[in-house]
Amino acid sequence: MPAALIQHPFMSQPALAECHAKAMIDAMLAFELALAEVQEARGAVPEGASAEMRRALESHPFDVETIAAGIASGGNAAIPFVKQGRAALPNELKRYFHQGATSQDVVDSALMLLLQPRLVALDALLVRCRAAAIELMQAHENTPMVGRTLMQQALPITFGVKVAHWALGLEQARRRLAGIALPVQFGGAVGVHSGWDDLGLDFMDALAERLGLAAPVLPWHTDRQPIHALGTALDAVAGAAEKLALDVALLTQTELGEVAEPTAPGMGESSSMPHKRNPVRCALIRGATRQVHGHASVLLNATAQPLERGLGEWHAEWAPLIDSALLLEGALEQAAVLLEGLEVYPEAMQRNLAATGGGIMAEPVSRLLAPVLGQDVAQGLSAEAAEAARLAGQPYAQVLHERLLAEHGEVAGRVERAELERASDPALYLGSSRQQVQRAVHWLAHE
Amino acid sequence: MPAALIQHPFMSQPALAECHAKAMIDAMLAFELALAEVQEARGAVPEGASAEMRRALESHPFDVETIAAGIASGGNAAIPFVKQGRAALPNELKRYFHQGATSQDVVDSALMLLLQPRLVALDALLVRCRAAAIELMQAHENTPMVGRTLMQQALPITFGVKVAHWALGLEQARRRLAGIALPVQFGGAVGVHSGWDDLGLDFMDALAERLGLAAPVLPWHTDRQPIHALGTALDAVAGAAEKLALDVALLTQTELGEVAEPTAPGMGESSSMPHKRNPVRCALIRGATRQVHGHASVLLNATAQPLERGLGEWHAEWAPLIDSALLLEGALEQAAVLLEGLEVYPEAMQRNLAATGGGIMAEPVSRLLAPVLGQDVAQGLSAEAAEAARLAGQPYAQVLHERLLAEHGEVAGRVERAELERASDPALYLGSSRQQVQRAVHWLAHE
Amino acid sequence: MPAALIQHPFMSQPALAECHAKAMIDAMLAFELALAEVQEARGAVPEGASAEMRRALESHPFDVETIAAGIASGGNAAIPFVKQGRAALPNELKRYFHQGATSQDVVDSALMLLLQPRLVALDALLVRCRAAAIELMQAHENTPMVGRTLMQQALPITFGVKVAHWALGLEQARRRLAGIALPVQFGGAVGVHSGWDDLGLDFMDALAERLGLAAPVLPWHTDRQPIHALGTALDAVAGAAEKLALDVALLTQTELGEVAEPTAPGMGESSSMPHKRNPVRCALIRGATRQVHGHASVLLNATAQPLERGLGEWHAEWAPLIDSALLLEGALEQAAVLLEGLEVYPEAMQRNLAATGGGIMAEPVSRLLAPVLGQDVAQGLSAEAAEAARLAGQPYAQVLHERLLAEHGEVAGRVERAELERASDPALYLGSSRQQVQRAVHWLAHE
Amino acid sequence: MPAALIQHPFMSQPALAECHAKAMIDAMLAFELALAEVQEARGAVPEGASAEMRRALESHPFDVETIAAGIASGGNAAIPFVKQGRAALPNELKRYFHQGATSQDVVDSALMLLLQPRLVALDALLVRCRAAAIELMQAHENTPMVGRTLMQQALPITFGVKVAHWALGLEQARRRLAGIALPVQFGGAVGVHSGWDDLGLDFMDALAERLGLAAPVLPWHTDRQPIHALGTALDAVAGAAEKLALDVALLTQTELGEVAEPTAPGMGESSSMPHKRNPVRCALIRGATRQVHGHASVLLNATAQPLERGLGEWHAEWAPLIDSALLLEGALEQAAVLLEGLEVYPEAMQRNLAATGGGIMAEPVSRLLAPVLGQDVAQGLSAEAAEAARLAGQPYAQVLHERLLAEHGEVAGRVERAELERASDPALYLGSSRQQVQRAVHWLAHE
Repeated sequence: MPAALIQHPFMSQPALAECHAKAMIDAMLAFELALAEVQEARGAVPEGASAEMRRALESHPFDVETIAAGIASGGNAAIPFVKQGRAALPNELKRYFHQGATSQDVVDSALMLLLQPRLVALDALLVRCRAAAIELMQAHENTPMVGRTLMQQALPITFGVKVAHWALGLEQARRRLAGIALPVQFGGAVGVHSGWDDLGLDFMDALAERLGLAAPVLPWHTDRQPIHALGTALDAVAGAAEKLALDVALLTQTELGEVAEPTAPGMGESSSMPHKRNPVRCALIRGATRQVHGHASVLLNATAQPLERGLGEWHAEWAPLIDSALLLEGALEQAAVLLEGLEVYPEAMQRNLAATGGGIMAEPVSRLLAPVLGQDVAQGLSAEAAEAARLAGQPYAQVLHERLLAEHGEVAGRVERAELERASDPALYLGSSRQQVQRAVHWLAHE
Repeated sequence: MPAALIQHPFMSQPALAECHAKAMIDAMLAFELALAEVQEARGAVPEGASAEMRRALESHPFDVETIAAGIASGGNAAIPFVKQGRAALPNELKRYFHQGATSQDVVDSALMLLLQPRLVALDALLVRCRAAAIELMQAHENTPMVGRTLMQQALPITFGVKVAHWALGLEQARRRLAGIALPVQFGGAVGVHSGWDDLGLDFMDALAERLGLAAPVLPWHTDRQPIHALGTALDAVAGAAEKLALDVALLTQTELGEVAEPTAPGMGESSSMPHKRNPVRCALIRGATRQVHGHASVLLNATAQPLERGLGEWHAEWAPLIDSALLLEGALEQAAVLLEGLEVYPEAMQRNLAATGGGIMAEPVSRLLAPVLGQDVAQGLSAEAAEAARLAGQPYAQVLHERLLAEHGEVAGRVERAELERASDPALYLGSSRQQVQRAVHWLAHE
Repeated sequence: MPAALIQHPFMSQPALAECHAKAMIDAMLAFELALAEVQEARGAVPEGASAEMRRALESHPFDVETIAAGIASGGNAAIPFVKQGRAALPNELKRYFHQGATSQDVVDSALMLLLQPRLVALDALLVRCRAAAIELMQAHENTPMVGRTLMQQALPITFGVKVAHWALGLEQARRRLAGIALPVQFGGAVGVHSGWDDLGLDFMDALAERLGLAAPVLPWHTDRQPIHALGTALDAVAGAAEKLALDVALLTQTELGEVAEPTAPGMGESSSMPHKRNPVRCALIRGATRQVHGHASVLLNATAQPLERGLGEWHAEWAPLIDSALLLEGALEQAAVLLEGLEVYPEAMQRNLAATGGGIMAEPVSRLLAPVLGQDVAQGLSAEAAEAARLAGQPYAQVLHERLLAEHGEVAGRVERAELERASDPALYLGSSRQQVQRAVHWLAHE
Repeated sequence: MPAALIQHPFMSQPALAECHAKAMIDAMLAFELALAEVQEARGAVPEGASAEMRRALESHPFDVETIAAGIASGGNAAIPFVKQGRAALPNELKRYFHQGATSQDVVDSALMLLLQPRLVALDALLVRCRAAAIELMQAHENTPMVGRTLMQQALPITFGVKVAHWALGLEQARRRLAGIALPVQFGGAVGVHSGWDDLGLDFMDALAERLGLAAPVLPWHTDRQPIHALGTALDAVAGAAEKLALDVALLTQTELGEVAEPTAPGMGESSSMPHKRNPVRCALIRGATRQVHGHASVLLNATAQPLERGLGEWHAEWAPLIDSALLLEGALEQAAVLLEGLEVYPEAMQRNLAATGGGIMAEPVSRLLAPVLGQDVAQGLSAEAAEAARLAGQPYAQVLHERLLAEHGEVAGRVERAELERASDPALYLGSSRQQVQRAVHWLAHE
C-alpha cells in the first residue's frame, strides 16, 4: 500500500507508531489473558492457569503475517490469533484459552483497547487547542476585523470573537467525545454466554473492570449504538477542526492576509513557485477531516446489523473506526499548532475593514438615519452611498453627508457629520464581541 | 413534486400535518414577536409596540407562495417573510420588526421551533417502543430460538434476549436524542449583536427562555455542532429502528416464519400475488432510515461553514434536517406497531432449532467431549457428526453416540448417551439469556 | 412539509410544476395503458380492450390522497393505483389491467417516465451553459488574472482559461448524463414474466418502444446498475456546477471583486445590511448540489438489493432520485444565468495581479536567474525579494535588480533590468492559456 | 497501523504486493523521466540529459521514510520526492528535473499509473466472473427455485435466471469501468504551462502517450470529473459484487440451504462453533464494498475544488481512490471464486418450493380461476386456500379443489383437478426464465 505516502501523512505520527498490527495482537492477547484471570477468579479456570498462560504468551512471538493470512479464511483476526495462541500453550491449558469467547468479543474489545489511548490523546490535543484558543481570543479581544457572511464583507467583529467561535465548536465536540464510553465486548458465540449462564454477565463486568473499559448493559454484537456514538463523536471533532482550517485558509488568502499559518522551516513550500507559502496545515486538516466524514458514512450505514452477527456490516467498521481516530489525531495536531502559533495581522484586518470605503457600515448608518428619513429611504440612501463611495474611493461618511445635503436638505441639519463618522467607524461597532469572548472563556474554563 | 407518492408515505402523517410551510411561517413569526417582546422589556422597543405587532401580524395572512418565490432572490425564507411582515405593520412599528436580527437568526430558530414538537413526538414513540419491548421480552424470557451469526444457525438464545437487544439499541438512541438541546439562534448580521453591545447576549438568553429553546453559549451561525449533534442523534435512532426492521424481515422469511408483522386489513398485499403477506412495515422503516443516513451525510459534510455565514453549507442543512425528523417519526410509528403487535411463533422457532438435527449444539457437545478426547479431536468429531446428522436426518445425539462407540471405543464408556442428549438440547443451553432480559428491563425501566 | 420554504427554492420551478403527484399517476397510467396495447397487439388482451381502457381511465379522476394513504398498507403507489384503476373499469376489463405486471414494474417505469423530460431539460441547460461559457471564454481569452493554488496567489492565467476549465467539467458531465439510458421495467412478480413465457421479453421490448424508454437486456428489479449510473451521473453534473459556484463565490469576495453575479432586482439583498450583494445564486447552487451528494450516497448504499425485490433498499431510491433531478435542474438554471450574465472586472484582476508587488512572478524570475546563479541561489533570491517587495510595497523587478547588484555583483551585468521586468510581467507569462481556450472551444463545439 | 489485520484482508493480496509506497515513488519517477524525454524531444532539455537522468535515478535508492516525513511540510509526496531526485543529479541536470511541472502533476499522474494495472486486473476478474456466470447459468437454465420478493416466497424462477441477473449487473459495471480513461496530469503551477506557451499542451499529449495514459483535453487540476467518473465506476462494480454476496448469503442461510460457498480448508470456520460454515467470502465482499461506498462519498463531496488547486479536497482523494481499487479487487477475487465454485443444491430449492404447500402458486391459480369466478373472488379463494394449505400441511391443489366444490359448486365442474395441479406446479411456471438466460448469454458474450 502506498498508504505511507498518501494516507499516513494526514495521521498523527506518534499515534501511528503506537497503533500497529502488533499492538492489535497485544490487545487481543490482553483480552484473552484478562478473560482467563477473571474466569480463574470465579473458578472457571484452574488456579494458576491464567498466570501460566500469561508467562507462555506474553513473550510469544505471534506471527503477524500468518494471522493476517488467516483472516482470509476466517474473516477476522481473532480466529488465526487464537489458533496461534493455543498452539503455543501446553495441552492442558489450550481449552482455557478463549474460553467462552467468540471472535467478535476479541476483535471488538481489542479495537476498543486500541482506541482508548487515542481518545486520551485526542482529548489532550483538544485541551491544548482550548488553552491556545483562550490565550488567542483574549489577546485579540479588541482587535477589530470585518465579519463576512456568504464570503462578503458584512459588519465588524473582533478577531477574538472569531476565535471564541472556533473554540466553542472544538470544546462542544470535546465534551461530546469525552462522554463516549468504550465498552468491553463479551457475549460468546451468540451473545448469551452460552454454557455459562449466570456467570456470563459477571465475567463481562469483571473483564471490563480489568481491562479498564466500560461495562455495557449487555453484549452489543449487533447493537452498534456504541460504535455509532463513537464514530459520530469523532466526526463532530473533525467538523470543528475543519471549520478552523477553512477559516484560516480563507483569511490567509493573499488578498486578505489577515492571518498566516505559523512558519516552520520548509513548511508550505511549493515545488515550483519559490514565493509561495501554502497553508499546508489547513490542507492537511481538511484532507483528513473529509476522509473522516467518509468513514462516518460507512458507520452510519452499518448500524443495523443482522440477527446475532453482522455479515460484512461489522467487518466494514474496523478500518473506518481506526482510520478516523488516526486521521483526526493528525488533524488536531495541526489544529493545535495553528492555534498556538497563528500569525495574526491586525493591520491587514484594519486595511480590509477600510476596503469598502466604510461601506460595510451601511447598516448602522441606516439605523442612524431611519428615524429621520424613514426605514426605506434610509436603507436606500445608505446602500447607494456605499456603492458610490466604493467606486469613488472616498470616505463613506463624506459621501453620505454630501448626499444628505443634496437630496434631503430638509433633514440634513438633524444629522451631524460627526454622528455619521461615529456611525461609520468599525471600531465603535463591535456589538457583543467583548462580552462573547468573556462568556466563552468562562464556559471553556469553568463549566 | 411527487413527494406525496414517493416520500410522504415514509413519514409520520400527523407530523406532516403539523409541519408544513404555514407552520414554518408561524415559527418565524413567533421568533420575531418574541424578539420584540424581549426588546421591549429591555427598553429597546417602545412600550406596547410588541403587543401591537402581535395584534397586527398574528392574524395576518402571510402569502406562502410569494415568500417561497422571494427565496430565489434572497436565498432564504426570512428575507421575503420580513418584507411581508413589515409591509403589514404601521410605519412607526416597521423598524422594530426583526430589529437586530439576521435571516439566519430567524431561519435557524424557526427550524428549531419546528423540530421541538418532533423531538417530543419521537421521544414518546421511543417510550412506547420501550414499553412494548419490555412486555415482549418478558413474555418470551423462556422462548428458545436459534441465534444466527453471519446468518447461519449458531447456538440457542431466547426470543426475549433478542428483543432486549433491540430495546437497548432503541433506548440508548433515545437517551442520546433526549440529551440534545435545540438552541435559539440570535446574533444579528455577523453574530456579534452589532449595535446592541451588552444587550445582545441578554436578548439572546431571554429569547431562548421565551421560546422554550435552549440558550447557547454564543450564537452558532457557523458553529454547527448543535446541528451535527442533532442530525447524528436522529441517525442513531434510525439505526436502532433499522436493526429491528432488518431482524423482523429476516425472521419473517417464509422458510423461517418465526415472527410476522401484525396483520391489518390490506396490509402487506401484493399487487399480483394473492398469497403473499409482505413485511411492508419493515420495508417502510428501512426505506425511511436509509434516507436518514443520506441526510446525515449531508450534515456531516456541512459542519465546517466559512467565516460568519455558510455559503450553501447552511442552506443544505434545512431539508435534510426536517426530512430526517419526519422520516424517523414515520419509521418509529411503524416500529412501535411492530413491537406492540408482533406475531411470534415459538413452534416455528422450535422447528428451526431442530433443523440441523441438533447440529447447532456442536459447541456444547465439543465442550463435553474435550476433557475426554482432547480439544481438537472433540471439535473434529462434533463437527463431522453434525454434518452427518444433517445429511442423514438423524438426531445429533444418536450419531454422536454411534461415532463415539465406533471410533473412540476406548473412551466411549466415559460419556453417557444421556449426557450427550442433555448437551445437545437447545432448551438447556440458553446461557445468560434470562439474566440479560432481567438486566435489560432494569436498565430500561430504572436507570 | 415546509418543503415549499426549505427545499423547493433550490429546485427548478418549471420542473416542480411538471413533476408532481398527478404526473406520477399519469406516468403509472401511461405504463398500464401501453402494456394493455402491447398485449392486445400480441393477442393477450381482447381486441379493442386497450382502447376501451384508455377511454375509461384517461379522464378518470384518480384520487391522489387515497393512493397516498394506500401506500402505508402496500408499500408503494402502484398497489392503490391499480385498485382505483380496476374499480373504474367495467368488470370484463378489470383482469386485463396491470396484467402480468408487478408493482415495481409500474413504479420504476413511472419514475423513468418522470425523469425523461428532466434529463432533456438538464441537457438543454447544460447546452445553454456551454454556449455561454464558450462566449465568455472567448471574450476573455486575453484577460490576465492571477491563478490561485491552495487559495494563494500563484502565477498568472487568463479568465478565459478558467472559464474553459469550468466548461470542460460541465461538458464532461453532460456527455456522461447524455449516455444514460432510462430503461422500462417489466418483469412481473419475480422478474421472469411468470405465466407469459416467451411473450414476456417481447412485451418488455415493445413496451419500451411504445413508452419511448430504453429496452433493458432483462428486467432489473434488483439489478440496480441503471439507477447507480443515473444517480452518479446526476451527481457528476452537480459536482461540475458546484465547482463553478465555488469559484464564483471565491472570486466575488469583497477583497477580490474579480467577478460578480449578474444583478437582478432584489437579488442578493441582505435582510439587515443594505450595502451587501450576496452571491445568492452560488449559495443556491451549493445548497442544492450538497443535497444531491447526500441523495447519491443513499443510492450507492442501495445498489445491492436482496433476491428478487428490495426490502427498503428499493423504496429508499425514489425520493433521492427525483429530488436529485429537481435540485440539479434548479442548480443548472442558476449556473446558466451565472455564465450568461457574469459581471467580469478585468481591472480588479489587474489590481490583484499587482497585489504582491509582482511577487507571484518569482518562478519565471527564478527561471531567468537560474542559468546565471544556479537553481538554488536563484530560487532563494527570487523568494526573498518577493517577500521584501511585498513588505516594502515596491515593484518586484526593482527590488530584484537592487539585490542582484548588492549581493551578486559579479553576475549582475548578465541580467538586464528590462529582462527582469519582462520576466516579472504577468501579462507576458500566460503559458498555454490561449491555446487551452482554443482547444476547449474545439472540443466543446465539435467533438 | 493495524491495517494488516483490519483492512488488508479485504484487499487483493497480489494487488497489495504490487501497490506499495515504493511503487508510488517509481510512478512519480516514471512521470519525471518521461517528462524529461518528451521535453528533450522538443528541444526543451539538452540532448542526452534525459537518458543521463534515467541512469542516475532509476537505480537511486529513494528514501521512502524521508519522503513520507517531508509530506508534513509540503502537503504531498511530490515535493520531497523532487528534492531527493534533484539532490541525486549532477548540478547541470538539476534544473531539467521536474521542469515545468507542479506537485499535482506528479501526484495525479503517479496515482493514475498505480491505478492502471488495477483496472486491468479488475477487468480480468470481471471477465472471469462473467465466464463463470455464463457456465453457471447455463448449467441451471432449468433448475427451478422460488423467487423471493421483500424476502418472502413469491413465485418460481430458475437458478439460471438469478445468475443471469447477477452477471448482468457485473457486466454493466465492467463495461462502465472499461470506458474510464486514466488521464495524465500536466499543467504546471497553475494549469496553464506557465513559461511554455504552445509547447505546454504538446508536452502534455506526448507525455500521455509515453506513459500509456489518456491525454485529457486540458489539465484537470480542479476539474475532477475524471476522478468522479472513476470513483463512481469502481463503486458500481462494488454494488454489483455486493448484490451477489447478499444473495449468496441469504440463500446460504441454514433454513434455506440452496447454495453454499465453495469449501476450502479452514474456510468459514468459527472460533467457537465447530459445526458452522460461515459465508466468509460474502462477509469479506460486503465488508469491502461498504467501505468503497464510504470512499466514493468522499469523492462525491470533493468534486468541486477551489480555483486552481484543491485545499484538502484534492488531498482527500488519494487514499479513498487507491483503497477503493484494492478493496474492490479483493472483493472481486472472492466473487470470482464464488461464481466458479458455488455449491448449488437443486433439491433444497425443490424443498423450499414446496414449503408453502404450493401456496406460492396462488397467482397462477387465481389467473386460472378468474374467468370462472371473477377476478376478486378468484384472488380471495386462492389466497385463503394458500393459507389453509400452509396451516394444514396439505397440497394446495387438493385444498383448492375441495373449496371449489364446497363453496362454488355451481362452477366447480368447469375447473378440473388436473388443471389445478398444473396451475400449481412451480416447474411449469417459469415464465421467461429460459429465454432470459439465453438473452443474457448473448448479451454477455457478443455485445
